[in-house]
Amino acid sequence: MMQFSTSLPFDARLWRYDIAGSRAHVLMLAHVRVLDAPERDAILAGLVDIQRDLERGTLTFADAPDEDIHSFIERHLTERIGAVAGKMHTARSRNDQIALDVRLYLKDVLRQMQNEVQQLQNTLLERADEYLKPGEEAILPGYTHLQRAQPVLLSHHLLSYFQMLQRDYERLDECFRRADVLPLGAAAMAGTPFPIDRHFVAHQLGFARVSENSMDTVASRDHLIESVSALSILALHLSRLAEEIVMWSAPEFGFVSLDDRFSTGSSIMPQKKNPDSMELVRGKSARVVGDLMTLITLVKALPLTYNRDLQEDKEPLFDAFDTALSSTRIARGVIKTAKFHTQKMRAAAGGGFSTATDVADYLVGKGIPFRGAHEIVGHVVRWCETHNRELEELTLDEWRALDERFDNRVLEACKVENSVAARQSYGGTAPQQVREQLARAREVLGES
Amino acid sequence: MMQFSTSLPFDARLWRYDIAGSRAHVLMLAHVRVLDAPERDAILAGLVDIQRDLERGTLTFADAPDEDIHSFIERHLTERIGAVAGKMHTARSRNDQIALDVRLYLKDVLRQMQNEVQQLQNTLLERADEYLKPGEEAILPGYTHLQRAQPVLLSHHLLSYFQMLQRDYERLDECFRRADVLPLGAAAMAGTPFPIDRHFVAHQLGFARVSENSMDTVASRDHLIESVSALSILALHLSRLAEEIVMWSAPEFGFVSLDDRFSTGSSIMPQKKNPDSMELVRGKSARVVGDLMTLITLVKALPLTYNRDLQEDKEPLFDAFDTALSSTRIARGVIKTAKFHTQKMRAAAGGGFSTATDVADYLVGKGIPFRGAHEIVGHVVRWCETHNRELEELTLDEWRALDERFDNRVLEACKVENSVAARQSYGGTAPQQVREQLARAREVLGES
Amino acid sequence: MMQFSTSLPFDARLWRYDIAGSRAHVLMLAHVRVLDAPERDAILAGLVDIQRDLERGTLTFADAPDEDIHSFIERHLTERIGAVAGKMHTARSRNDQIALDVRLYLKDVLRQMQNEVQQLQNTLLERADEYLKPGEEAILPGYTHLQRAQPVLLSHHLLSYFQMLQRDYERLDECFRRADVLPLGAAAMAGTPFPIDRHFVAHQLGFARVSENSMDTVASRDHLIESVSALSILALHLSRLAEEIVMWSAPEFGFVSLDDRFSTGSSIMPQKKNPDSMELVRGKSARVVGDLMTLITLVKALPLTYNRDLQEDKEPLFDAFDTALSSTRIARGVIKTAKFHTQKMRAAAGGGFSTATDVADYLVGKGIPFRGAHEIVGHVVRWCETHNRELEELTLDEWRALDERFDNRVLEACKVENSVAARQSYGGTAPQQVREQLARAREVLGES
Amino acid sequence: MMQFSTSLPFDARLWRYDIAGSRAHVLMLAHVRVLDAPERDAILAGLVDIQRDLERGTLTFADAPDEDIHSFIERHLTERIGAVAGKMHTARSRNDQIALDVRLYLKDVLRQMQNEVQQLQNTLLERADEYLKPGEEAILPGYTHLQRAQPVLLSHHLLSYFQMLQRDYERLDECFRRADVLPLGAAAMAGTPFPIDRHFVAHQLGFARVSENSMDTVASRDHLIESVSALSILALHLSRLAEEIVMWSAPEFGFVSLDDRFSTGSSIMPQKKNPDSMELVRGKSARVVGDLMTLITLVKALPLTYNRDLQEDKEPLFDAFDTALSSTRIARGVIKTAKFHTQKMRAAAGGGFSTATDVADYLVGKGIPFRGAHEIVGHVVRWCETHNRELEELTLDEWRALDERFDNRVLEACKVENSVAARQSYGGTAPQQVREQLARAREVLGES
Repeated sequence: MMQFSTSLPFDARLWRYDIAGSRAHVLMLAHVRVLDAPERDAILAGLVDIQRDLERGTLTFADAPDEDIHSFIERHLTERIGAVAGKMHTARSRNDQIALDVRLYLKDVLRQMQNEVQQLQNTLLERADEYLKPGEEAILPGYTHLQRAQPVLLSHHLLSYFQMLQRDYERLDECFRRADVLPLGAAAMAGTPFPIDRHFVAHQLGFARVSENSMDTVASRDHLIESVSALSILALHLSRLAEEIVMWSAPEFGFVSLDDRFSTGSSIMPQKKNPDSMELVRGKSARVVGDLMTLITLVKALPLTYNRDLQEDKEPLFDAFDTALSSTRIARGVIKTAKFHTQKMRAAAGGGFSTATDVADYLVGKGIPFRGAHEIVGHVVRWCETHNRELEELTLDEWRALDERFDNRVLEACKVENSVAARQSYGGTAPQQVREQLARAREVLGES
Repeated sequence: MMQFSTSLPFDARLWRYDIAGSRAHVLMLAHVRVLDAPERDAILAGLVDIQRDLERGTLTFADAPDEDIHSFIERHLTERIGAVAGKMHTARSRNDQIALDVRLYLKDVLRQMQNEVQQLQNTLLERADEYLKPGEEAILPGYTHLQRAQPVLLSHHLLSYFQMLQRDYERLDECFRRADVLPLGAAAMAGTPFPIDRHFVAHQLGFARVSENSMDTVASRDHLIESVSALSILALHLSRLAEEIVMWSAPEFGFVSLDDRFSTGSSIMPQKKNPDSMELVRGKSARVVGDLMTLITLVKALPLTYNRDLQEDKEPLFDAFDTALSSTRIARGVIKTAKFHTQKMRAAAGGGFSTATDVADYLVGKGIPFRGAHEIVGHVVRWCETHNRELEELTLDEWRALDERFDNRVLEACKVENSVAARQSYGGTAPQQVREQLARAREVLGES
Repeated sequence: MMQFSTSLPFDARLWRYDIAGSRAHVLMLAHVRVLDAPERDAILAGLVDIQRDLERGTLTFADAPDEDIHSFIERHLTERIGAVAGKMHTARSRNDQIALDVRLYLKDVLRQMQNEVQQLQNTLLERADEYLKPGEEAILPGYTHLQRAQPVLLSHHLLSYFQMLQRDYERLDECFRRADVLPLGAAAMAGTPFPIDRHFVAHQLGFARVSENSMDTVASRDHLIESVSALSILALHLSRLAEEIVMWSAPEFGFVSLDDRFSTGSSIMPQKKNPDSMELVRGKSARVVGDLMTLITLVKALPLTYNRDLQEDKEPLFDAFDTALSSTRIARGVIKTAKFHTQKMRAAAGGGFSTATDVADYLVGKGIPFRGAHEIVGHVVRWCETHNRELEELTLDEWRALDERFDNRVLEACKVENSVAARQSYGGTAPQQVREQLARAREVLGES
Repeated sequence: MMQFSTSLPFDARLWRYDIAGSRAHVLMLAHVRVLDAPERDAILAGLVDIQRDLERGTLTFADAPDEDIHSFIERHLTERIGAVAGKMHTARSRNDQIALDVRLYLKDVLRQMQNEVQQLQNTLLERADEYLKPGEEAILPGYTHLQRAQPVLLSHHLLSYFQMLQRDYERLDECFRRADVLPLGAAAMAGTPFPIDRHFVAHQLGFARVSENSMDTVASRDHLIESVSALSILALHLSRLAEEIVMWSAPEFGFVSLDDRFSTGSSIMPQKKNPDSMELVRGKSARVVGDLMTLITLVKALPLTYNRDLQEDKEPLFDAFDTALSSTRIARGVIKTAKFHTQKMRAAAGGGFSTATDVADYLVGKGIPFRGAHEIVGHVVRWCETHNRELEELTLDEWRALDERFDNRVLEACKVENSVAARQSYGGTAPQQVREQLARAREVLGES
């Protein structure tokens, strides 16, 4: 049963937050004269002592008999400073103490996560910038339904992930704001008769606000669920990026090669160079999703206030952040060092009739109704398929043989570069648009 | 295959948004002179016509052969105004058109949802106020581990749900801000060569911003996932409220009776009065969670940009909002009309030794160390259990017989009302604190 | 509230089962003399009447005021035969009645589902057979990490899905056995004082067994969860098949073209032929998964026995079966009519150095330690990459220039056909093995 | 990246299976003369050596630089026996090797799990037997909608969980049968050219069958998903049991007290005795569900065959089994030692009008139509509620004053014991039925 119910193996990692919380609590207790100065100083000195030993590794959690991190620290404090240690727990309960530890942790990792997201965004901007040199913009097919649809700039493609990540960043920021509320002082669930000063503690620990309702404070876990939900969405975005990188690494695409640090060979197939890093990023998105489901299932239909079930909130929370942080970091390394094969991209963009829409638009420009233009181009495409030709290869004579309404401007219309350049709408893939998009992205990143 | 792939049966409900979007698009096309005035007017008149017939019910979707709502409306427009109808689709694609329809829908239902949340919050405030009359404050046991822990005010308990809902409200608001971005103009995925004015359309349709990247615009669904995630958390909060109401309705608790409108009898058990409404609220939380999982699983590892898989996003989205809206409404009706049995609550609060902590605190106040005080009270509790007595019933002689350190102030300390009144910490359950909490809650509601 | 709590809109589809169950119940009640013959006959005639009207469509559910299908039918029965209709409900409750209806439905759809699975298996066998003509076996690259690993037979690849589906079939069969238990007679939850004969009813309705415990009978839903779990796994298998078909349809692969019935064009891109059918199969797997999560979340921590929450079990159940049935049917149509481009497959199999392992094995056969062989081949592969050559193209002189230990048998070793033919281990991809696998598969299908 | 991609920290626990698999593989390689006897013996001796050191703890995984358990063991083997160690890997790949290790693990833990389930079933039978002494059968209210519905035997209630667990047991058994298939020999994914004898290996390792298709063998994970799905259903059953035990422990119910080993006190509330054990059982069900979602999300839309994503299958698998095993064990301890308060149960069963149905049935027996009887009893119930009386307390005069059709048999009809005794239908709660149910349950347990 001890093994079943102990939380020390996983909540031990909260020790810094637990000590920081106790320190602030003790300062406050002295401030409101529940503790006198010598008591305060004895406890604070004991806590400093424990912290030092934990940092040095002379104190460890291995084989500790304690149920949780709070008991561990209180036991060691008692061993060091005697019975006065017991006064540290005045006017609080483990219910609000663990709530505090988790919020301090959460605020920390949310900021770390935001920082990782920004670094990945930065890398995307760098790579987008690299492939946006005037006159040498890298072009690849844009896909819908995994069929070549219209040519796009590689930079435009990379920036689409910048936008997804920007929303991830914002969500994490909003999670932070809701996490930034002091729970300590809710005590077991009803508040405490001791004359505590919660705003003093909030100020000490850097919380923006103090929680409004003691029952809500110890019972609620929505700040964890929404954080892991934000991580799940981030992980989904990374899974899409990973899917593309894996697919682009296949020889059939050949659009990208990963750096050796981020790919591995096979023990029995000498020719293999596997994009393991991004396969793992894709696969690990599943565990963040599983963590989310654990938290949701955990909380469903629990009556107020604290129930022991809630102890199970920490492992999925930790796992989700550990996974999302490392996946983001790996994705950044992959993107930073990836070798994009722009010639293969350009060749693919010229194939598969990806400028067929442009030819139709050109016909519309000549006054042919869209439906008719669509039909004419469909006819051209089928002819090319049969004869194994690409639109860019056709001569004017061939165009005119297919339909005499074509004139020499069709040779421009079907060119990949012209197709891209034409898409001048706001947010479109024309180089000028993408440059402006990049500039705005830089600004956003500078601000956020 | 038609049956398998059609979306009309569910996307038909987007028709108002589809028409509104087309109207704004057409106005813009005329504004930038892609359409001339007569074309514009013909199309707008046709759309008005269709809208009127749909509202009157003279035009219906039954047995329509169309693949989706866009085709349905375009077909009817063509039937009414002829080939010019085809020009409406200039410079857009179904990829950005459906993205627009869904965002218009999403903005609408998010605001409806926020409104429902506020109404439930309002009801909670009313009921909390009702049980907060000075000197007559309703008291019930506060539970941890479903064991009586400390007495709390019923108003305090109700306000804890106010706080949860307030965070739900904020999350919905943030979802709204990210939904409030115009997707139209992304076209198929790369933007369009037509000289469109996306800001004009955004202004017409009331969007705050225009999307930055055309590929992201047609490929991403995180605004749906985060919205359904916010609804899931809301549904979890309602599931906890429902669990409590169902449990409080059990004869063993007897804390509440639901109004007849919200409970049902049994066809074979004449004595039954079942809290079906709240059982359904609790059960329906599961479908919102299922909807969330559908959306997450759907998007995982999809390459950019549009894939037909994404068509499957609408049913879980609609179902999640329909369910969350109706569950919130029902919960409000239940709370508004519930009959709280405050005498049974008060009796229960006085039982189960829920003021044992207060007695221990009183001993601490007399200078007995907490550990010792805890032991003395534990001894008293065990004696009471054996003799089937409650703390409030003990005479001073009995207290002193158990431990001579008790004096007559213990008779006050063990009183439920005093226990509650003592919890004066910010956010605590003392009447004064709860009144201030209520006042702040009103302010928040007024503001939001 | 009525709208919130009614189940008629979705349980109406259980009407045949409800009538069949009532018929068997009434026959039993007469058999044990709770009803007399005239009562029995009146009720049976009334039920026949209602069934006929429902089949003809002269009786519909539109705007019916009833809470559920049971009330609907009882009301109509009462209207037709008067008060004796009320006797039909003797010795049963809606709790065991709905449990019966759902089990009858479940047994039906499980068998339909098994049938659909077998038909898809059959189609896979046909296509596998087609590409297994001696001397003309279709070969494509086998992938690990989406990198070409070793050449395999197309038939072998198709048969791998046969195996997955066979396990799906078995799981459905096991679900059937657990569904095949009569719940009727549990009554509200405690059994009934009437002298009913449950085995008589089971015999009438074709149930293999009678449930053992009345409380379990009305409270449990694991037969639904396990069925939807089996469907989820099936849907995952289809999602993998779909992913491959979609990827193989991309021009970069070009391994397959879907029949026009199962692909669609684009309204604005004349060249597009999208594999929508399989994208939808892939996408719809997500809704089966969502249905599973709904059922799991629904049941979590519900106390015994019946709770109104359980009403919410039907929509996810129906949706999961509807979706899995249609997805399987569509996948069959796609596979049956798909055009596999075996030349492109063969060309790809010869590229990417997919026989590098075979060359290494050949060196091992010459006595060179595996580690050394691996290195030599790695060197050859890098040389080929630099010089843009494939292994099959190298001359003996070139081989020997790269490493003089090569002799002319290397020209055989690196041939794709020989690589495939060599994999003679049980379950391997050698044609002989695949033929035997096919034969065993046919046998399994014949048996099951 | 190393830290991101290594699996040694979690797959180390497969070391016994890895060695056992290698041993069988080496024996086979010698059997088919790929290895000679000295090579075989050297490798086997080296493996024995490593196994002994791992068992003794003189060899540990801490700080090992290896990517996975296979590399770890191969490295240590090479260090001990030199280059011949490399021959162990002939004709296999890590793809089929890990598949083997996991199947060996899975077979083991499935059997352990089945054993735990049976032990819990046994405990339920013991407790059910204990409360079934003729004439002293413990009776409690049976609940629907958490309202008292009809009285039932405590033994009947306990046996309902026996039935759920029996189905869990069967599901695990079926998972075992599908796990019991040898994957080794699939090699990387296409089989191997070496003349291996897979049936020899299967025999050595105790597998019932050999896998049919090498691609399916390394690509599929449905045996894991179905196992974790079976565990999820088991965990849901335990969550329901836990919910009931927690609720019954609340003072409002007071039906059960947990043994001190399975409950804990509060550090600040001296009166608390919390059912932590069962709260954790309930909470931990959520992590099994999360593990299931991880596995499902992981596999969705993965192309064949092995992808590195699949490495992520092990942690959720291990966690699900660890959690389900310990939760089942704890639940058994709780039930074995729980103190059921049968007097409180009996008192509750007599309250809440739980025999109202019986009184109605009695009236029906007197020829009053059910609808009328229902109304009369409803009237009685409302009168009792107003006057705070229970049915069992009413005198004949009082009954007759309420409705003169009552005669003295009503005094029997409303007795709880008679209500229970009357429910003689198969699977009903009458003592005789429950005894037979118990006897059949024993038989099932003996067989299974």
